[in-house]
Amino acid sequence: MTFTASQIAAMINGRIEGNPDAAVGNFGKIEEAREGQLSFLANPKYEEYLYETRASIIIVNEALELKKTVAATLIRVKDAYSAFATLLGKYQEIAQQQLKGIQEPAYISKTAHYGADIFIGAFAYLGENVKVGDHTKIHPQAYIGDNVSIGDHTIVHAGVRILHSCVIGSHVTIHAGTVIGSDGFGFAPQADGTFAKVPQIGNVVIEDHVEIGANATIDRATIGSTIIRSGAKLDNLIQIAHNVEIGNSTVVAAQAGISGSTKVGKGVMIGGQVGIVGHLHIGDGARINAQSGVSKNIEPGKAVTGSPAYDYTSALRSQALNRRLPDLEKRMKELEDELTRLKK
Amino acid sequence: MTFTASQIAAMINGRIEGNPDAAVGNFGKIEEAREGQLSFLANPKYEEYLYETRASIIIVNEALELKKTVAATLIRVKDAYSAFATLLGKYQEIAQQQLKGIQEPAYISKTAHYGADIFIGAFAYLGENVKVGDHTKIHPQAYIGDNVSIGDHTIVHAGVRILHSCVIGSHVTIHAGTVIGSDGFGFAPQADGTFAKVPQIGNVVIEDHVEIGANATIDRATIGSTIIRSGAKLDNLIQIAHNVEIGNSTVVAAQAGISGSTKVGKGVMIGGQVGIVGHLHIGDGARINAQSGVSKNIEPGKAVTGSPAYDYTSALRSQALNRRLPDLEKRMKELEDELTRLKK
Amino acid sequence: MTFTASQIAAMINGRIEGNPDAAVGNFGKIEEAREGQLSFLANPKYEEYLYETRASIIIVNEALELKKTVAATLIRVKDAYSAFATLLGKYQEIAQQQLKGIQEPAYISKTAHYGADIFIGAFAYLGENVKVGDHTKIHPQAYIGDNVSIGDHTIVHAGVRILHSCVIGSHVTIHAGTVIGSDGFGFAPQADGTFAKVPQIGNVVIEDHVEIGANATIDRATIGSTIIRSGAKLDNLIQIAHNVEIGNSTVVAAQAGISGSTKVGKGVMIGGQVGIVGHLHIGDGARINAQSGVSKNIEPGKAVTGSPAYDYTSALRSQALNRRLPDLEKRMKELEDELTRLKK
Repeated sequence: MTFTASQIAAMINGRIEGNPDAAVGNFGKIEEAREGQLSFLANPKYEEYLYETRASIIIVNEALELKKTVAATLIRVKDAYSAFATLLGKYQEIAQQQLKGIQEPAYISKTAHYGADIFIGAFAYLGENVKVGDHTKIHPQAYIGDNVSIGDHTIVHAGVRILHSCVIGSHVTIHAGTVIGSDGFGFAPQADGTFAKVPQIGNVVIEDHVEIGANATIDRATIGSTIIRSGAKLDNLIQIAHNVEIGNSTVVAAQAGISGSTKVGKGVMIGGQVGIVGHLHIGDGARINAQSGVSKNIEPGKAVTGSPAYDYTSALRSQALNRRLPDLEKRMKELEDELTRLKK
Repeated sequence: MTFTASQIAAMINGRIEGNPDAAVGNFGKIEEAREGQLSFLANPKYEEYLYETRASIIIVNEALELKKTVAATLIRVKDAYSAFATLLGKYQEIAQQQLKGIQEPAYISKTAHYGADIFIGAFAYLGENVKVGDHTKIHPQAYIGDNVSIGDHTIVHAGVRILHSCVIGSHVTIHAGTVIGSDGFGFAPQADGTFAKVPQIGNVVIEDHVEIGANATIDRATIGSTIIRSGAKLDNLIQIAHNVEIGNSTVVAAQAGISGSTKVGKGVMIGGQVGIVGHLHIGDGARINAQSGVSKNIEPGKAVTGSPAYDYTSALRSQALNRRLPDLEKRMKELEDELTRLKK
Repeated sequence: MTFTASQIAAMINGRIEGNPDAAVGNFGKIEEAREGQLSFLANPKYEEYLYETRASIIIVNEALELKKTVAATLIRVKDAYSAFATLLGKYQEIAQQQLKGIQEPAYISKTAHYGADIFIGAFAYLGENVKVGDHTKIHPQAYIGDNVSIGDHTIVHAGVRILHSCVIGSHVTIHAGTVIGSDGFGFAPQADGTFAKVPQIGNVVIEDHVEIGANATIDRATIGSTIIRSGAKLDNLIQIAHNVEIGNSTVVAAQAGISGSTKVGKGVMIGGQVGIVGHLHIGDGARINAQSGVSKNIEPGKAVTGSPAYDYTSALRSQALNRRLPDLEKRMKELEDELTRLKK
């Protein structure tokens, strides 16, 4: 796909300086861009590149004053970065929509149903009674188990496994290798020291506009559902245990893990490699710093850090003092000596 | 599959109150259950739902005294929860046993052997000299490398990769996306600052009744075997390095990692996101708290926490004092001032 | 494949004691080896096994003096261990080279190109304009997205996913289940509390002689490239975020995570479960201890530990004192009492 300066200016409602017929086929950073590429300048500290870049079209801020002549065609907008992001979004949408049809061989059970404008990649598996909505793309080697339903405009990347009876909403993106609906980790200790499996017969429900990273795992509920609410964003390699609930627009960074039955509120920010024990309530808007170990409920809006995690500001002070412990002990020693002298 | 109240009462040896022919096809929480579903009441705090639920059959405790009339058919047993769990177990066993035959296309080498009542899903791969026992289920897109042997009644879920020469026991369950037999992480530093790979030619041995979660990794030994002993339970996203041994009925929670050649005893409990360095011995029955960093051997039965990890009780006291460091320093300052005054 | 003592002696330039025609088909630890196996003795503490082992051939050090007669054929070399490692390397190289051809069914787009002596396993997927070099092995169920290029002598294990437009070098090994080129985790907060996806249109570039473990994730850049430099070694389950750069011969242990745009220098050692925040510079030769949480730049050659991480030696002293906090507080209490007495 190639676009001309005038087409692009129309899409982002910008003003052209230079050749309106200049054409680009893809994107590049201003410091690396080659001919036929589109770039942008948002951060003034990169302005020098504006005069050297080989990019054919550059999106710049309305306000920018040129210090030299520029070879490329410029498109001026209010906010160059967000205009550029908008463009990329449209570009990817078009690309996804071009993906259509069914590649051979795919395994599609006779009882599976799918809507219009879908894509099913080679070696993908659709089990019994699977339902796939319109404009949804199931990439190669994905596994959709029996009785799974998936909404519209959802993207299931290569090698994703969605196990039986899970429910996936619309406008959801699940990245490669992620497993949804694996058994929860439930074992009942027996008298002889062994463990008996507690059957996990619930499912996972993922609401609309959720995005889940690569090689993550979300376990099905023991009974009922593990739920990821609308708009939540989960990063790579995260672990969500059975019967957990993640609230609307909550963000979970890479390699974080949330234990069984914990309920996380709305708009919570969970840092990378955070661990949260089971059966807790994390209030709306709480912020949990990277690598924290959460073992208690968190009030709405509270920020915590550390392992075990507690109030962010006090924790930082303790961490600072902790580094000064050698000094603290030295002062202690001095006091003790002084006292001994005094007592003589 | 649907079951009547009398069939279920027979399975869990319970007493029916209501219609013995009431039939159910699946399960639900008492607060959510719909008609045609089976539910249970174990926790008195949910009793109110007993009188509202639309569930067709409910398992309740022998002792329960009804406050109002109940629409559903009741089955009374000594312990409603464990009776319910027993039922689920039988239900899933039946479901698994119904899974039989070979879906097309699957890749099965001419030298692969498999027993009776097996299932091999579409796009599954069985390499040279693979041996699969009776009643074992290889789900779609699983990879079984050359010379792998798998016992009876084992479940290999979708997209699991078992690499060449590994040995898997009977009644083992391996969840989706897990990799068994990847190369251990062994590199010899060279004079020029680069690394030479140390070939990893051992294998992984997984004994009977082991369960391994989703997207986990278990590396093959450099020479010899990485061993997971009978009855051990490993959660999602755990990492087991080369030449590690995990003892009988040891439990490893999600995202924990165990480094090369460490031997973990029997009945050990390892919390989520724990890290254990290489070449250690973890004694039988030891307990390692979540997120601990273990850098020393642990005595049998000992509990540890923290990073670096040490004795649980003392570590908790230090953690508590650590939070009070700002206060401690304040007291120190006061002492110093007092002394200065005294000396005048 | 079987080899005779004289063939092996020739490969590692060793001197035979015993039967030059003794033959072996594989390898074993000296304490476990069976007939027909090759073993080695490097560590004197295992010498006793030399006189008991059933191995057919044993590689020993030039200097070794026998205390009893040995049944097996010996091959004497300067350094038994490295000679053994060299052999294993050659053995595996031969084995890999024997892997050739294309298994059916595989999905290979009409526009995909591949070189000589390649292997493409069953259910592997090669998208549009994929380029694969000579002697490269694409194992079963691997996914190679559109416009990906892969060099020579590279091994892509079962179920690896390399997404569109990524560039993989020569002599690279990627272990099973790893995802390369998943979207970076980029979302712009909106006025209404939801998040808008920032399109990720860069790629991942992996240079020559890199090895990446199993079930790891490496995200594509927002714009430009996420880069893993020549000779870097990454372990299982690691997370590399968008626009990160990893320097030459840097080693990253299992379950470590590196956040967006952080640049890691050459020859850096990153321990297991380490977390590094975004936009940092980690100097050449820096050493980061396992489970550290890095929130600041690190100078070249510096060693750090802890979460938050700081200077290794001071951190260890603080950790030690931290354990003695209860004692420190006791001393403080005593001082306070003494002072009160003194003031009377």
